[in-house]
This record gives sequence, C-alpha cells and structure tokens, in this order.
Amino acid sequence: MSKAILRVKSFLKSVLDRFFSQLAKRAIVTILCFVALAIATISLPAEAIQSRREPSLWQVYQQSLKSAKYVDLTHAIAPSIPVWEGFGPSKFEPTVNPKTGKPYTYETDGFEATHYDLATDQLGTQLDPPAHWDPYYPTIDELPATYAIRPLVVIPIQDKVAKDPNYHLAVEDILAWEKKHGKIPEGSVVFVRSDWSKEWPNPNLAKRRKFPGVGLEALKFLHLERKILLHGHEPLDTDSTPTLEGEAWLLHNGYTQAEGVANLDRVPETGALVAIGYSKFKGGLGGYARYIAICPSDWKYGVSVGQTPEAPLPKSEKPIHWDKALGVRVR
Amino acid sequence: MSKAILRVKSFLKSVLDRFFSQLAKRAIVTILCFVALAIATISLPAEAIQSRREPSLWQVYQQSLKSAKYVDLTHAIAPSIPVWEGFGPSKFEPTVNPKTGKPYTYETDGFEATHYDLATDQLGTQLDPPAHWDPYYPTIDELPATYAIRPLVVIPIQDKVAKDPNYHLAVEDILAWEKKHGKIPEGSVVFVRSDWSKEWPNPNLAKRRKFPGVGLEALKFLHLERKILLHGHEPLDTDSTPTLEGEAWLLHNGYTQAEGVANLDRVPETGALVAIGYSKFKGGLGGYARYIAICPSDWKYGVSVGQTPEAPLPKSEKPIHWDKALGVRVR
Repeated sequence: MSKAILRVKSFLKSVLDRFFSQLAKRAIVTILCFVALAIATISLPAEAIQSRREPSLWQVYQQSLKSAKYVDLTHAIAPSIPVWEGFGPSKFEPTVNPKTGKPYTYETDGFEATHYDLATDQLGTQLDPPAHWDPYYPTIDELPATYAIRPLVVIPIQDKVAKDPNYHLAVEDILAWEKKHGKIPEGSVVFVRSDWSKEWPNPNLAKRRKFPGVGLEALKFLHLERKILLHGHEPLDTDSTPTLEGEAWLLHNGYTQAEGVANLDRVPETGALVAIGYSKFKGGLGGYARYIAICPSDWKYGVSVGQTPEAPLPKSEKPIHWDKALGVRVR
Repeated sequence: MSKAILRVKSFLKSVLDRFFSQLAKRAIVTILCFVALAIATISLPAEAIQSRREPSLWQVYQQSLKSAKYVDLTHAIAPSIPVWEGFGPSKFEPTVNPKTGKPYTYETDGFEATHYDLATDQLGTQLDPPAHWDPYYPTIDELPATYAIRPLVVIPIQDKVAKDPNYHLAVEDILAWEKKHGKIPEGSVVFVRSDWSKEWPNPNLAKRRKFPGVGLEALKFLHLERKILLHGHEPLDTDSTPTLEGEAWLLHNGYTQAEGVANLDRVPETGALVAIGYSKFKGGLGGYARYIAICPSDWKYGVSVGQTPEAPLPKSEKPIHWDKALGVRVR
C-alpha cells in the first residue's frame, strides 16, 4: 500500500512538473504575444487595419508631405527669357483702365495688374500637349485631372554633356539609372538632367544648334517599355535633329512632354514626387507650367512647410515697381 | 486504504481537469497571439517600424495618391469668360511667323501655337498674391515652393446663398463645419462652396453687385485663429462691400487667396488634398491657376490614375480648329 501511495505521489509530481514547465512555456509565449501586440499597437494607433494600409490623405499630408522638401523646378517667365526666334518677342505692361487709358497704380487705385502680350504659349518652363503638333490629340485644357502629382525620376547626363554639348539621352543611360535605383515606375515623370539651364536666362541659349537632347530610342523605351506619364528636359527642344524627330514621335502619338525644366541639380535621382501645375487656356497648345519637386524630408535642398513664412508672407523693404528698360516689375 | 486511493484519484482528476482547462485557455491566448502577429505582419511587410511610420514618398504615391480620385477645380480661360469690366477684354490669336506675318498651320508648318493678348493677370481661376494690392509683399513668382499640395477643407454655404444671393461666410459657418468634421488643420486650404460657379461662363456673372462672399470676420478667424494657408471662393471677388474690405485686409497683411474656383460640388467637405499650380510670371500680380482636388479613393466623383488614357492620350475624331467668332480653338 505504501508503495502504491508512493507511485501515485511520484505520478502526481511528474504531472505537476509538466504543468509548471508548461506554465513557463506559456509565459514565454505570452511575452511574445505582448511584443506582437505592442508592434501592432504602434502600427495601428486607434485605426482599423484597412485604414492603416491605406492611410487617409490628410494623414499622408501630416506624416509625409508636410515635412518633405519642396524644390521649384520652374523658370520665371519674363520678356527677356530664351525663346525660339520663330515665335517673336513677348511684352509685359501694366494693366490699363479702359476708361482713362492710364495704368492702374497702387497710389491712385489701390492695386495694380499686368497686361501680357505673349507671342506664344511655348514659353518658359512648359507642358507640351500633343495638339501642339497634331490637332486630333488633346489641347492643354483637355489633359485629365490625373496630371497632378507623380513619382519623379531624374536621369543624369550632365557628365556626358560636359564632354559633348550635343549628347542625347540613350537607352543605356536609362538602364544605368535602373541598375542603381531599380525599375522606373509606371506612370512616373522622368526628367533628364543636363545642367543646360545653368546658363538661363542667357537669350543665346535658344539660338544654339547643339544642345543636350533626348534620343528617339530613349523616348520610345520610356513610353513603350516603362509606360511613363511624360518626360521632361532642360532645353526648349527635345532633340537637335533637323526634323525634331523625338518631338514629332511624341506629339503625333499622343504623348506630352515638359520643356525648360530648371534646378534638376537640386533634386534626388529617385524617391521624390513632382507636382504638375499649369495655366488652363481653352484650346491652348502649350502650358505655362510650374513643376515642384517634393523630396524626402532629409534631402539637403528645398524647404519644408513651416520653415519659411507662408501666411502671412514676409514684407520686403523694397516695393516692386515697373522697370521700363526690362519691361517687367522688379524690386 | 481504498478510501485513501479514491481521494488521491479524485485529487489527481481535479489537477488534470485544471491542467486541460489551462490548455484550453492557452489555446485561446495562442490564437489571440497569432492574430496580433498577423496584424503586425500585415502592417510591417519587410519594413522597420520607423519607415512604416513615415513611408517613402514613392510608397505614398503607390498606396494613397495613385488610387485617389482627381477632380479639376479650374475653369478654362477663354476670351469670353466673366471678368471685371475694369480690366477690359482679352484676345487669343494663332501665333504668327514673324518673317511671313502669317499664322503657323499644321498643314504648312507641322505645328501651331497661340498668341495671347491678356488684359490682366486677374483672369479665370487664379491665385492672388498680396502684391496685387501691396507692392511690399510677394508677387506670384515670389511665393514659396511649399505652395504645392495641402489638406483641402470645403465649407458649404450654398443653402444659405440659395435664400440670400449676397450671403457671406460667417464664423458660425466655420464652427458648424468644425463641429461636424473636427478642427481645421493649420496650413490647409479652405474653399467656400457657394455654387455661384454653376452659371459659369455667363459673362453677366461679373456684373452682379450681389454675390456670395466671405466675411471679414471669417477671413480673420481662418487666418489668425486657424492659421490656414489660404482661402478660396467661386466668385471673382472676396466680398460685395464697396471697399472690398476682405481682399483689402488679406492682401495688405501678406495673405494670398484663390478666386474663381470651380466644381466644389464635386469634392468632399473633409479628407481631400488640393494640388496648387499656376504659371510663374516674373513680377506677376495674379496667377492663372490650376487647382486639382485629390479625393479619397472611394469618393463618388473624379478619376484615378489609370482609369482614363493618359499616355498616350486618346485621339479625337474631330480636329481642333480656330473658331473666328469665338476667338479660340475648338473641336
């Protein structure tokens, strides 16, 4: 009997040992669970999983866009900027009161405005709609609203251009970019950095027969293989061939392009976005555009929301006034 | 002895029962752990927590901006659109070859372009820089690059305007919006929906003395209390007071404003972003602007990236051509 009791006690002890060993295991599992729950909690502050996977657009602004670095890729349009001589000159004047024939002035009228006589809509930093060359394709006001904000790819050819001012982007330059940064995203905007615009606004820029271009095969590769939204370049033409073969192919096939893009030395080759804006003239064949690069928050150039006075804007010590020689308002 | 064995057996049974009951509890805890781990895994696909909390800008595009619904808030500018009579008419013409004096044509030259004679930069959907009224504040080309993309707040007053065509946004309308949607974010763009633009492009719109405005106290509240970037309205003036007191306060204090905004009946009151684009004329006192609302992907209006042909754009059956009576290209 005593042996029987001892066997039972021994069995009981082994059961309890296993039980406490399981308790220890459970403690480990429980700790792991708390870690997992903590990660989930950090990732999901008071939100459902679905909304976290696709954050609300206001969250996107607060988390990512607000602290991004904004870089303007746009030249200011003035009568003296480089333009193809075939378009002739443009002229700015103060807006005139039709009743008096005299310009409105801050002193007399409390406001001023500007009269523009613009020889062409192909002026300054712009967006070429295909109707510039082909009447069956959209004009500037017919582009879809989705031309608004896109991933920005910047392909550098400035080193090759430094050796050959007539260098044109080739497919191998695109593949070299992809080897470094990965595949170009579908629907992105691809700007070609040549540093041509560093001489802007030297009017002679528009007279040069040799300038950095974008080769036809590169354009075809970007559109047909990578399915980008549009490409852009610093000069005022796509290439320096006598027939403008690149622009011809683009516009006769329904593609748009950006021209006269600036400050590409101030944006990263990958990882930025670009905001696309332009004036919307009915039946317009060019778009006076404004491109703003939205770069990662740790990027060395650009300015973030709140880093510079925005509203109210800063008051200057010098008032703007009309400069008759320049034909434009200056400070 | 038999009783002693029975007691031991009974004790053993109760221990085993508790053990299996604990097993069941542990199973529940384990399942919960797997759920937590699954959430953590979904939230963190091969990324660190930090990068998840601030996703890269290209991820932001792929996850949130690409599937958003884009709505154009911009009127197309044409010679016949409503404009203050004090600015006089504007005129569009085909661009002329300075050598021949004849317009470029698709047939002869392979391209066309547009000559604009614009009486004012205060035309169409626009962005008013403070230098329009005050020469010490920035012109359109002096605005910072951070005027690019912002949270969009739309405050509806169209029901009050339907009863009183001269109704002006009041602070109570702003507070009513906030009661419904929460506090207006700092740095946001606030557009006032009045449905005034539903009659656009009726030229008589610009002649009316009574129109939906934005009250001075509301402007002060939005800028001084809520610190917004800018407000915008559908009409061409801020208010219908004889001194334009609202515009005077804004522009003499360094604030900008959007005018002639369209399609505010097509955007949500909260949760959208707005892309701000405009042509960048040196010393310009108005900005021919393009505002695009970027709305949540489940919004009923607008178009997402990829939902409409973008590159290449669709070919039309009708070519554009110059309409001499309208003074603009049409299809």
